[in-house]
Amino acid sequence: MKETVIKELKKVELNHPILIEGLPGLGLVGKIAIRHLTRQLKAEKFAYIYSPHFPYFVLVSKKGNVRLLRGTFSFWKDKNGKNDFIFFTGDSQAQTIEGQYEISDFILKFAVKLDVKMIVTIGGYRMEAKDKPKVIAAATSKDSLNMALQAGAEVSPTGSPIVGTAGLILGLSHFKKIDALCLLGETRGYLPDPKSARSVLEVLQSMFGFDANLAALDEEISKAEKMVTRLQTIEEKRALEAEETRKEEEKKVTYIS
Amino acid sequence: MKETVIKELKKVELNHPILIEGLPGLGLVGKIAIRHLTRQLKAEKFAYIYSPHFPYFVLVSKKGNVRLLRGTFSFWKDKNGKNDFIFFTGDSQAQTIEGQYEISDFILKFAVKLDVKMIVTIGGYRMEAKDKPKVIAAATSKDSLNMALQAGAEVSPTGSPIVGTAGLILGLSHFKKIDALCLLGETRGYLPDPKSARSVLEVLQSMFGFDANLAALDEEISKAEKMVTRLQTIEEKRALEAEETRKEEEKKVTYIS
Amino acid sequence: MKETVIKELKKVELNHPILIEGLPGLGLVGKIAIRHLTRQLKAEKFAYIYSPHFPYFVLVSKKGNVRLLRGTFSFWKDKNGKNDFIFFTGDSQAQTIEGQYEISDFILKFAVKLDVKMIVTIGGYRMEAKDKPKVIAAATSKDSLNMALQAGAEVSPTGSPIVGTAGLILGLSHFKKIDALCLLGETRGYLPDPKSARSVLEVLQSMFGFDANLAALDEEISKAEKMVTRLQTIEEKRALEAEETRKEEEKKVTYIS
Amino acid sequence: MKETVIKELKKVELNHPILIEGLPGLGLVGKIAIRHLTRQLKAEKFAYIYSPHFPYFVLVSKKGNVRLLRGTFSFWKDKNGKNDFIFFTGDSQAQTIEGQYEISDFILKFAVKLDVKMIVTIGGYRMEAKDKPKVIAAATSKDSLNMALQAGAEVSPTGSPIVGTAGLILGLSHFKKIDALCLLGETRGYLPDPKSARSVLEVLQSMFGFDANLAALDEEISKAEKMVTRLQTIEEKRALEAEETRKEEEKKVTYIS
Repeated sequence: MKETVIKELKKVELNHPILIEGLPGLGLVGKIAIRHLTRQLKAEKFAYIYSPHFPYFVLVSKKGNVRLLRGTFSFWKDKNGKNDFIFFTGDSQAQTIEGQYEISDFILKFAVKLDVKMIVTIGGYRMEAKDKPKVIAAATSKDSLNMALQAGAEVSPTGSPIVGTAGLILGLSHFKKIDALCLLGETRGYLPDPKSARSVLEVLQSMFGFDANLAALDEEISKAEKMVTRLQTIEEKRALEAEETRKEEEKKVTYIS
Repeated sequence: MKETVIKELKKVELNHPILIEGLPGLGLVGKIAIRHLTRQLKAEKFAYIYSPHFPYFVLVSKKGNVRLLRGTFSFWKDKNGKNDFIFFTGDSQAQTIEGQYEISDFILKFAVKLDVKMIVTIGGYRMEAKDKPKVIAAATSKDSLNMALQAGAEVSPTGSPIVGTAGLILGLSHFKKIDALCLLGETRGYLPDPKSARSVLEVLQSMFGFDANLAALDEEISKAEKMVTRLQTIEEKRALEAEETRKEEEKKVTYIS
Repeated sequence: MKETVIKELKKVELNHPILIEGLPGLGLVGKIAIRHLTRQLKAEKFAYIYSPHFPYFVLVSKKGNVRLLRGTFSFWKDKNGKNDFIFFTGDSQAQTIEGQYEISDFILKFAVKLDVKMIVTIGGYRMEAKDKPKVIAAATSKDSLNMALQAGAEVSPTGSPIVGTAGLILGLSHFKKIDALCLLGETRGYLPDPKSARSVLEVLQSMFGFDANLAALDEEISKAEKMVTRLQTIEEKRALEAEETRKEEEKKVTYIS
Repeated sequence: MKETVIKELKKVELNHPILIEGLPGLGLVGKIAIRHLTRQLKAEKFAYIYSPHFPYFVLVSKKGNVRLLRGTFSFWKDKNGKNDFIFFTGDSQAQTIEGQYEISDFILKFAVKLDVKMIVTIGGYRMEAKDKPKVIAAATSKDSLNMALQAGAEVSPTGSPIVGTAGLILGLSHFKKIDALCLLGETRGYLPDPKSARSVLEVLQSMFGFDANLAALDEEISKAEKMVTRLQTIEEKRALEAEETRKEEEKKVTYIS
């Protein structure tokens, strides 16, 4: 495999589809959100993207089977709405600069082929959330941005960078004449953050009217918060001990000189 | 986007144009100088360069809009002179060796297409300036070099390297039969240095006779100098404290042994 | 050489061949296993793979001769069995992500050309082995996996990554409709580990019924174990000395403060 | 410039030419040797090689002129011998793995075009020389190797790597059916080593019978040796001081505990 490829598992006919993307990144916000949506809505896998710009290992899946790292497209037909949905997530971001541009470009070209009307990308925004993580929005058109703001998102500060596929898809969508919106959930970023993903999902739910059953995320959120508390306790203890050691050292210096 | 591309916003007819380039680099000298020129002369944007060799993030611009990193070409028609001008600056240098050569090559090919007569590249030269930063010049022809020397620049020391796009454009312009000149303002390099940019702009103004309204840079220069002073004070204090600590440690050793 | 190439030394006609691959990696398990097989079975070299993704040096071989880094294909005709065998090993893994995918792809394309029926890749699995290193298996089909399990291998834990060519060949073999199996010998990984290679060879021997004369590895295993013991002694001594120093330091602190 | 290119300054007709290559590397042995030969024999430049795999800066040459990094081919017609000579050196090795293979390949393709009969590459071999640096040889044919051995070189140890262009040219020359020899001068490697270059030049002189006026290198050798002595003195003084400090520290520990 010298080139990135998209392998379609089946041909699908979709009604004015909207593509929602979330690859692993800060706090895994995008990946957690898409995984939740595909499970709750029982979206069906219909295409994979493979690339020599993904890391050079494979994963052992269930029962000793093996698979390449990949991105996965699933679709969900919304019987009550005027749009069907495509969800995209994957194992990894591309590992090189050129690969990042290439993967984003492939996703966009595939979106054009599927006649996608709008793309929403999801990621994390490094910020200690007060209580409930906010959702920060940026978009290629005023209409898309307003949809997000009305659904509870806040407009991104000017000059803020959006790193990786979530950002490049917006930058490149301009050339494909597809409207694109980016939703970033506030997150510390260094641990999986389902609470931040929940905030993003609330905005999506409000924008598109589907039922994402957000309560199903609560157990995961509770586990993640316990992990954070445990790590903070360890860190505080370590800081305390370091402080003790420093004081002992200071005494030593004082007594001698 | 697998390849670097230039997107033209409009077709322009220019009179013996001179291209002046300044990307971010040491002291941001080139970028500050070009930004100043485009603003003061009210130059008009007419083309962008996009590349998978730029960093893989996008920037949120005003009102939550988003754009790819890019380089920007603007033009200014000089009603009083015999040359029109093209200004080029951007968000970033290319991030790989091959990308550096490619971006420089694209700029040159575009210059050929626009029938550019001369290229001036701007950058920083790492040197603690005594009072007023000097401007160091190198060129692909004696005529261009002499123009710069007569305008107050000094000839570059032999063997000195010119890193990045400002240098490669000169090296590659030879193959395109375009005359090219590089002007480097002395700068410490680690902070934006509008004073160094001012020195370069003085040389350009003297060479090409346009009015760049350099006084408009003075406030920026004053702010930058305050920042340097503040950082120096912090650094001196830190050095003093380190010295104190060292002396205490020495006493300790002396008393004990 | 801008591209990876396979140079065939001679055309071979093979009977339902099985390809067994082992490049340098953790504990050199794959390389040691293939080197042993080719020697014991007197396999004959018939093709080399060269690539600009291998490291940029050459090796001086016997009598001052020189050769590029390469991978080597050998074949062995099994008169008693229903399959002939191809063995592949080499000097190095590819040095870049894209190179890793490319080399694996070239091996697979060559396998298709040679009408290979099954591929087995060999590598190391980072795990302190209790006594006898276990062999961990993953495969692209149940049949292949079961063959390995019946021969004494254990199924790989889910989610475990297989890094490098041994993994990517499995991932990519899917596109070529070739069945592939990966056998990983447990190894500490930082030193050549012929004992781990022996475990893998036992599984292969049991699967394919050839006589790999494993006793011939015993001397190498004994040497490697002495090396490990020597390094452990050095390390223990170093740790003891560090502990002594720490205690002295602690005494000092206690007496003073 | 997206691709490596060779620019010919003039067409030359050469008589059974021998190409001698020496790029910067360990102790700059190859570069010093080629620079000396081209100067002493008044060889004439006839082609440059440019590449996006060279570092991304340009050099200011005399009088403020500028040039890309490049490799330079010069030729010398030997009126008394049966072979003319091509000398190749440059500013830098290629900066990427793929670039290393590409540059070596370009040199070889150009050699084929010029009907080169033999290639000699020069480099350094990291080894503290006793008195006079030895010259280590490896070759693609017995005849070439024997020529070098008869001229005073010693055969390279088996398994020794030859890094960079000097090595890859030998590895790749096999595919072009050109005989190639590598001569490596023993050198500490971290400083320019004209003495090592002199040893290599003696072997070349003896092999090919040209007069390289080696005495002209003596002044450079003497300067380089003074530099080494000065650095050793500084290093010894530093080591002595470190030892003193260590002893003081030890006393301290002893007195206290």
